[in-house]
Amino acid sequence: MLAEIITIGDEILIGQIVDTNSAYISQELNRVGVQVYQITSIQDDKGHILQALANAQKNADLVLITGGLGPTKDDITKHTLCEYFEDHLIENPKVLAHINTLFSQYFNREPLPANRLQALVPSKARVFLNNHGTAPGLWLEKNNTVFVSMPGVPYEMKYLMQDSVLPCVIEKFKRPFIYHKTLLTYGKGESQIAKNIEDWEDKLPSDIKLAYLPALGKVRLRLSSKGLDENLLKQNVDAQMEILSDLLADIAIGYEEETSIERRIGSLLMDRGQFLSLAESCTGGAIANQITANAGSSGYFKGGIVPYETELKTAILGVDAELIREHSVVSIPVAEAMASCSNQLFGSDYAIATTGIAGPSKGDGRDEVGTVCIAIATPQGVVSEKFNFGKARERVVSKATNKAFEMLHKEILKN
Amino acid sequence: MLAEIITIGDEILIGQIVDTNSAYISQELNRVGVQVYQITSIQDDKGHILQALANAQKNADLVLITGGLGPTKDDITKHTLCEYFEDHLIENPKVLAHINTLFSQYFNREPLPANRLQALVPSKARVFLNNHGTAPGLWLEKNNTVFVSMPGVPYEMKYLMQDSVLPCVIEKFKRPFIYHKTLLTYGKGESQIAKNIEDWEDKLPSDIKLAYLPALGKVRLRLSSKGLDENLLKQNVDAQMEILSDLLADIAIGYEEETSIERRIGSLLMDRGQFLSLAESCTGGAIANQITANAGSSGYFKGGIVPYETELKTAILGVDAELIREHSVVSIPVAEAMASCSNQLFGSDYAIATTGIAGPSKGDGRDEVGTVCIAIATPQGVVSEKFNFGKARERVVSKATNKAFEMLHKEILKN
Repeated sequence: MLAEIITIGDEILIGQIVDTNSAYISQELNRVGVQVYQITSIQDDKGHILQALANAQKNADLVLITGGLGPTKDDITKHTLCEYFEDHLIENPKVLAHINTLFSQYFNREPLPANRLQALVPSKARVFLNNHGTAPGLWLEKNNTVFVSMPGVPYEMKYLMQDSVLPCVIEKFKRPFIYHKTLLTYGKGESQIAKNIEDWEDKLPSDIKLAYLPALGKVRLRLSSKGLDENLLKQNVDAQMEILSDLLADIAIGYEEETSIERRIGSLLMDRGQFLSLAESCTGGAIANQITANAGSSGYFKGGIVPYETELKTAILGVDAELIREHSVVSIPVAEAMASCSNQLFGSDYAIATTGIAGPSKGDGRDEVGTVCIAIATPQGVVSEKFNFGKARERVVSKATNKAFEMLHKEILKN
Repeated sequence: MLAEIITIGDEILIGQIVDTNSAYISQELNRVGVQVYQITSIQDDKGHILQALANAQKNADLVLITGGLGPTKDDITKHTLCEYFEDHLIENPKVLAHINTLFSQYFNREPLPANRLQALVPSKARVFLNNHGTAPGLWLEKNNTVFVSMPGVPYEMKYLMQDSVLPCVIEKFKRPFIYHKTLLTYGKGESQIAKNIEDWEDKLPSDIKLAYLPALGKVRLRLSSKGLDENLLKQNVDAQMEILSDLLADIAIGYEEETSIERRIGSLLMDRGQFLSLAESCTGGAIANQITANAGSSGYFKGGIVPYETELKTAILGVDAELIREHSVVSIPVAEAMASCSNQLFGSDYAIATTGIAGPSKGDGRDEVGTVCIAIATPQGVVSEKFNFGKARERVVSKATNKAFEMLHKEILKN
């Protein structure tokens, strides 16, 4: 069975927001065996919405719509749904009661008239209460196609997907199994990898699809397959994935469903009862942010410092000021000293240090924009390397972050 | 004139990556007066690509395609373009020379055969050299519609947009002016704002469109208009925006084209020659990361510390251990002490401190998951507030970050 996702909102079409809802919905649908055929983003415009609904109906058994359900005047999805389904709006007492409760509980005031309008729903719709907001989810059917409308606020949409939409989809449709498995690699490019695995790729069974997903310093390799026998499906894909992992043993980190490189590092450290700390200059907290995004990171992460001003590398972290004068703040000796000092300051076993020139101006460094020195202090000593990550600030930070994780992971595995 | 964006790649439809390219392309097209009518994400499938091209041709004068141009076997865009344009591939000597130079310069080796295949282009295409990669941009025309194909790697796509595609679009098409202006507000919800500005909104001229863009703790209000007379357009929108800003003076931060709240804070501090530091516990580097993402932040940002382990709040930051024992680590007194200590440690004028329980487990705090204490130390003293930001870890961190910026901004304006 096929699904289409329609996102409604001018903010997407003028590029003011990035559409993250579609990725979430696609993932969740895939998980339950529903293949997403197309994602369509359209304007807050009645004619365009009607056309998109009609087009989607031609290909899809299930159409998931987000956006355009807010309490303000720029939201028109609900009225357009009434037109498409030849329906009219009625006040739903359960939704109204829910809105009243929500306001008295969280805001300690009466809902405004605009909030109460959220209780109006198409009379033919099955209504899903939204515990995280005021706009309900709506389930409508026309000629064997199911249309579900949800608010565009990600937190509310996610609640409705989990609480109502997915369970109803599972009940309503017969679905095959879809299985993806992704290998995460760091350190080689797409075409180098392709050459290494050419023979294996040529012999890959035609019902298993390989995709390359390159990013800054890493490449993900995804195998996908679908079928009715879940066990057979997983067996076949897992067997191919095992061969692939062996072929790429020197650069593989693990499977992405289960891990990211920072989670992999976290579980290695936890197993050993060891701790990490960070001294981030040019990455400015990006590494700390990525580590602490994982629940449970306090089990292996002591903390970090962002000594952005050069003098603070001495004053707080304890790097010898003479070393900075002699080698410049962006240098291998300074990066190594930062990493060692970080282990001392935080009482950790491993430390990452970054110092570099993210640009566009050169700051206190003597090198070119994009120069970054990364050092990893370990229980055995310090390793380090100097890079040039190009001229774009954001990319310099991302590449430095990925490279630092790659270097740390290697060092942990050595010990 | 209207444009459609088509992104090709199963990785988008299975939700493995979020499509950020479309937002970038939409913004850039809007900037030069091209309205994006629709964004369509489709599979790596010949039939589906052909159908999408034909559908786009019905509505759009310009179709921008990204993805499916990589060197590996899962990329089929180029062959499908040949079929749609009844064309064939030829080797382009300029692209081949560029690939050879790139490899000898950056990788110090010969390109692989897969890399050399990137020099094959449809014979009817105008070819744009890609200085940031091997796959060129392709410009093809059919019945007055222009199709441009670009690689899906954001860095390469952005280079081609700026270097070739936008200049050629400007030359080829007559375009109106499109003007957006967005007011950024912190502290009130969408429906409260709607009620405050109801009278004004009802009288807004019909050629100016208002949109509400709510996010965690902030709401953006966008006015949009388009027309042939650029000056008149700006005058009209700016005049309405001035009224709107006055109506929302208590919650408005500034215009988003010019500023984010962290950039606004940065320029206020720079004007005064003052500095900021951070002591982030539950936000784990997220605030530092957001500040240092801005070029020039070293002009007002001393640095930050992430004392993730409770003991480090005492050992490094200098918070009285007795205070933590007495009030618990997530408490107003501890947050205030962290902020004051941060100013001392870093020698800054303002400091933000966060301590809280991002969840899902409660860590060393005594309160519920989602509890966050934020303190702002200023040259005059310390202010602080305790919040509950809900149960979702990522949202707790984002809301705390937004609220911290809102509180700091208010304090700076008082002084």
